[in-house]
Amino acid sequence: MQQTNFYQSINGIFAVGAANGADAWQQDRGLAYGHGLFETMRYQGALVPLRERHVKRLCSDAAVLGISLDRAIVDSHLGQFIEVLAAQKVEAGVIKILATAGNGGRGYQSPEIMAPQIICQYSSFDAEQASDQRELGIKLWRCAYRLPSNTVLAGIKHLNRLDQVLARSEWSSSEFADGIMLDAHDSIIEATSANIFVRTAQGWVTPSLEQAGVAGVMRALLIEHLFLNQNLSVSINPVLANDLEQALELFVCNSVRGIIPVTHIAGVGTLSGIDISIGDQTRMLQSALGKLYPCYL
Amino acid sequence: MQQTNFYQSINGIFAVGAANGADAWQQDRGLAYGHGLFETMRYQGALVPLRERHVKRLCSDAAVLGISLDRAIVDSHLGQFIEVLAAQKVEAGVIKILATAGNGGRGYQSPEIMAPQIICQYSSFDAEQASDQRELGIKLWRCAYRLPSNTVLAGIKHLNRLDQVLARSEWSSSEFADGIMLDAHDSIIEATSANIFVRTAQGWVTPSLEQAGVAGVMRALLIEHLFLNQNLSVSINPVLANDLEQALELFVCNSVRGIIPVTHIAGVGTLSGIDISIGDQTRMLQSALGKLYPCYL
Repeated sequence: MQQTNFYQSINGIFAVGAANGADAWQQDRGLAYGHGLFETMRYQGALVPLRERHVKRLCSDAAVLGISLDRAIVDSHLGQFIEVLAAQKVEAGVIKILATAGNGGRGYQSPEIMAPQIICQYSSFDAEQASDQRELGIKLWRCAYRLPSNTVLAGIKHLNRLDQVLARSEWSSSEFADGIMLDAHDSIIEATSANIFVRTAQGWVTPSLEQAGVAGVMRALLIEHLFLNQNLSVSINPVLANDLEQALELFVCNSVRGIIPVTHIAGVGTLSGIDISIGDQTRMLQSALGKLYPCYL
Repeated sequence: MQQTNFYQSINGIFAVGAANGADAWQQDRGLAYGHGLFETMRYQGALVPLRERHVKRLCSDAAVLGISLDRAIVDSHLGQFIEVLAAQKVEAGVIKILATAGNGGRGYQSPEIMAPQIICQYSSFDAEQASDQRELGIKLWRCAYRLPSNTVLAGIKHLNRLDQVLARSEWSSSEFADGIMLDAHDSIIEATSANIFVRTAQGWVTPSLEQAGVAGVMRALLIEHLFLNQNLSVSINPVLANDLEQALELFVCNSVRGIIPVTHIAGVGTLSGIDISIGDQTRMLQSALGKLYPCYL
């Protein structure tokens, strides 16, 4: 398909534009196909906890999608963005980085020379609510929607997130802070916007993300450092609904909110009406995380 | 997550904007999550073949994604767009309609009141190449990438198209006009941008799209009208790689290019190196389609 001419209308308003002009965001492959990725980060006092992990993950996962991102450039955009926020006296919030494959290509075919688009966005954040959640725990909705299996895309925080949108649409009550998602084989994978760790009589386990799910940066910090530092072991294995019914402790985690204990799971079918206490080991892990990054206290 | 303040940078250029301002396209749920759909249509002489089917499918599939689209409004935007193209003496090309869930919501949660964004885009089109393809046939690449199973999203032309992007990245030679995609169970599903029909000794069959794939408008026209009009029968059933190896006739179809015979499949593993002749029944169907819409002749 040649694109010598390009016209468009947005919500009925006609516009003539160049096919690859700076105004042609409607042709960005991020919008057209979800050809891109994102990171959601905590921002506090001109710092981003786990910044290096976020930038590293974004760039290495981008390569799987054929998008070549330079770590130094991404980190420099983020650094400049943080500087401006700090100069504007912005104290705390959330920073999201979107990296897309940019414009061009012929249909699904990527352009030979890709010009990725890197967008940094700040939005405010209810830190008090997150603090309450860490203290008191949250309730999870057990989503009926199932995550599909995809070994190529599993683990990547890409822009194809209809699974999460559809799962999140199952409940509207603010009683449930997040939803728990299973795959088609009744394995627990993750929450819609957090990873999951559970302690059973066999010890701590977090779901394997070989088939589905997003491999979160906070999850990696927990596996690689926090558990070890507390002399606790954790395994990465399939987790079945039955394991949650036997849960001694359960928490979700992400890099915006930290470690959030789960006290209840509700929903239709299996895994409905489960109550769980907040355990000592969860408190130890929260405390260890707070020592590294006080914004998660 | 509250969004009382919003800042962003695009490729390193800082900008302050309102969270829901008209300039905040970077917050559109279509970009953020692929929360939207699209149609790709042929435009010829101020007409869009299958226009009613395209608009109807867009609106009914949008409802599955929680997006409420008014058919009359979408059709009116399309109609106005066609009028302006015609006034600009644009003779032929492709029109794409994107419909997204618009801005707003809290993370994956959709806003209570959704303001969908409807974008019409025109781009030129190599009609001569398509005509040659219909006459001479095309070669397909057999993609190694497998389509995941998802009964909720199967059939819908949504904006989560990383599957097609990754499959399309497997070959770069222009020798292959499209690629053939299988699911994890070795069932043939579709081409990256077209549906598939195959004639074996048992007759014509097109793959069931209950688990994966896009239910194309041209496919529907073929199933509902063109086969019947030619006194041919066609079934919708799982199609296995073995069925293609026994193919007597094979074609792909979409509403941009019409009915394109396939003469060869190449690639690694099964289904590599298959040659197929262009058969009389394919020619009959092409001719019947051309009578309805001469742009596909």
